[in-house]
Amino acid sequence: MITLTSDFGAPYPAAMRGVLRRRTDAELVDVGHDFPRHDVRTTAFWLREVLPYFPQATHLVVVDPGVGTDRNAIVVRAGEHRFVGPDNGVAMPAARRLAAGVDLEHYVVDETAVDPPEPTGVAKNSNARSGPASTTFHGRDVFAPVAAAVHDASPEGLRSLDALAPTDDVVDLMLPEATIDGEGDRAVGEVLVVDDFGNVITNVPGTWLEGREVILANGETIPTGPTFDTVGRGERLATVGSHGSVELDVNRGRGDEAFGLDVGDRVVLKSMPAE
Amino acid sequence: MITLTSDFGAPYPAAMRGVLRRRTDAELVDVGHDFPRHDVRTTAFWLREVLPYFPQATHLVVVDPGVGTDRNAIVVRAGEHRFVGPDNGVAMPAARRLAAGVDLEHYVVDETAVDPPEPTGVAKNSNARSGPASTTFHGRDVFAPVAAAVHDASPEGLRSLDALAPTDDVVDLMLPEATIDGEGDRAVGEVLVVDDFGNVITNVPGTWLEGREVILANGETIPTGPTFDTVGRGERLATVGSHGSVELDVNRGRGDEAFGLDVGDRVVLKSMPAE
Amino acid sequence: MITLTSDFGAPYPAAMRGVLRRRTDAELVDVGHDFPRHDVRTTAFWLREVLPYFPQATHLVVVDPGVGTDRNAIVVRAGEHRFVGPDNGVAMPAARRLAAGVDLEHYVVDETAVDPPEPTGVAKNSNARSGPASTTFHGRDVFAPVAAAVHDASPEGLRSLDALAPTDDVVDLMLPEATIDGEGDRAVGEVLVVDDFGNVITNVPGTWLEGREVILANGETIPTGPTFDTVGRGERLATVGSHGSVELDVNRGRGDEAFGLDVGDRVVLKSMPAE
Repeated sequence: MITLTSDFGAPYPAAMRGVLRRRTDAELVDVGHDFPRHDVRTTAFWLREVLPYFPQATHLVVVDPGVGTDRNAIVVRAGEHRFVGPDNGVAMPAARRLAAGVDLEHYVVDETAVDPPEPTGVAKNSNARSGPASTTFHGRDVFAPVAAAVHDASPEGLRSLDALAPTDDVVDLMLPEATIDGEGDRAVGEVLVVDDFGNVITNVPGTWLEGREVILANGETIPTGPTFDTVGRGERLATVGSHGSVELDVNRGRGDEAFGLDVGDRVVLKSMPAE
Repeated sequence: MITLTSDFGAPYPAAMRGVLRRRTDAELVDVGHDFPRHDVRTTAFWLREVLPYFPQATHLVVVDPGVGTDRNAIVVRAGEHRFVGPDNGVAMPAARRLAAGVDLEHYVVDETAVDPPEPTGVAKNSNARSGPASTTFHGRDVFAPVAAAVHDASPEGLRSLDALAPTDDVVDLMLPEATIDGEGDRAVGEVLVVDDFGNVITNVPGTWLEGREVILANGETIPTGPTFDTVGRGERLATVGSHGSVELDVNRGRGDEAFGLDVGDRVVLKSMPAE
Repeated sequence: MITLTSDFGAPYPAAMRGVLRRRTDAELVDVGHDFPRHDVRTTAFWLREVLPYFPQATHLVVVDPGVGTDRNAIVVRAGEHRFVGPDNGVAMPAARRLAAGVDLEHYVVDETAVDPPEPTGVAKNSNARSGPASTTFHGRDVFAPVAAAVHDASPEGLRSLDALAPTDDVVDLMLPEATIDGEGDRAVGEVLVVDDFGNVITNVPGTWLEGREVILANGETIPTGPTFDTVGRGERLATVGSHGSVELDVNRGRGDEAFGLDVGDRVVLKSMPAE
């Protein structure tokens, strides 16, 4: 299986699908192509949360604000999973999780050793691309060809691919972690993402919420509950989201608007003081 | 084949795909994931109109405003077709149509008997979910596992699945029907949905329009015609839509704006009085 | 393989998928369903750019502002590739490119010889469609059935399909070409499309930009460069896009807004005068 992730919208992903299908029979599964444009961190979060549910696969990830610069194309092996994409850290949080404690292996791609796609009917000297890879669409011209080759090699066979050379020098990305004070009464974290429903997903571990029926979230008193319907329609609550961390939500409404919070904002959660 | 329907937007459906693919080789086909959020009735309409064109399949339908409450998870068998989703009626109009006159069978899901997904690399005591199903993402943690099991059982084999118990107590949903007066000159219905084109789809049977060249729609005189191009660009008409019911449309424009109509609004259609 | 292209948004494409899957085992691949509504020219451009990366396939293309009028349904053979859709030229630029110099073959569809879909559970005299094709959803009722038949026939076997008759009388569509003056210092073209990133894609061949570090674009002095990051964030540049033609872009911003250009606008590019 090859999964596809990008910030391309439409119809660029179709060109990647065409390139892949010419070279491999792998099942192609879209993770999504509407990730926020150039937003490496948000994409990294979602990959970390979604990909652990997949069987082993090659993950083609193209959120690449540096396309055409001298940033490398890389391949990361995480156990039975492999990632192909730009060297900007986007795959690292997911790769660490999928590796499940095994060391990651990193490879840098020698782009001159990649066979670029050969579009049908594109004559030389026409105004359509031919020859070397485009400078602006590496998803089609570099990453998709590499992903097809990586998929068709076994996880152990990456070293035998001519276009790949082992490296230890890759860009890492760590999603921020919340800090909890010694007594456990106070958690300081931040908003990692806001999902399509408006749920405010923080990095405070869900376990912090256990046993607390009401908390102070950025100074405001908020009930907690296992489900949205713990509170009335349109009311706020803190819950443990499907990612296992604390979410600030509104039952059938948008938490981001109700709490006035956006990605990267600081979140301070406190126990209610004893009376 | 397993079809997937939700109001999740992106990228949550990818997690369901991952769970399904780990458990079954079934072909996975998206009906759509952009149905209006929490809108059980609109989704029910579209499923009724779209699914009859599919071969036999298991239909995973997750429009679930009550997720995490005590609403049941259910399975409905409609002949060779099976539905898996929340017990809120969303699948019922489609199930009745697909059953083609055969009695429906309903099963309630014992959620404690469902093997939840085991995401790779999620250590215990980490801030990622493990153990029981999340309270907010039953699509991934309950419905997808059940859909995989239901697909791999034969339609007749549902009774043998440990997690399913027959029931007759399920939530029904009837889409409203238009009334036509005795003489047939007057139809009173409502707007079922407005599609992406802005076409106003009513519940008045298309047969009512036969033989009428001009009608009164909510008091306004409107021509009828078999196709949009019966009228000039930007002009209004009444036609029989691809769902077989009367639509109020604008040729290359939006009917909802031109008629000032939205979902649930009352629509009164009358024959033109003889002069 | 059958590719699917439309301006339907959701969930109408699912009905086409259902019809196709009932009739063929072909792999179904979406090119996209969010092409601008009724925009034959823009869709024609994208098909020309994306489809050359695909292996041989049957391409179902339904951008069809004239649905229900007397426009024909046609099939076009371009070498090993085949197109099915309305006779409005939408497939012609792609077909010419995919034919790679071989003559195109065109067929008109006899719609009365097409077996329409038979939706499950749709009783006669109900308000759901039965019998002949709808007048408004030929994608489901005409083009999808024809695409399944065309796919299952060999490219050479089109002549044996009862519903197809050879014709030379089809609507053509030529995307405009830029003109370059004799000295090569001046190119007059137009904006073909603006992509989701806001990149302004012109029809001026990328080769025109070779050797020029700065140009005048509609009178304004603009640097050129091989990649967006040639200029600072938010700054404008001219580059050769992944389609091989000149694009007017902004590094990590929207070129259409910065240049004030939209589809069809005239673009005059000039060399900088020697000092």
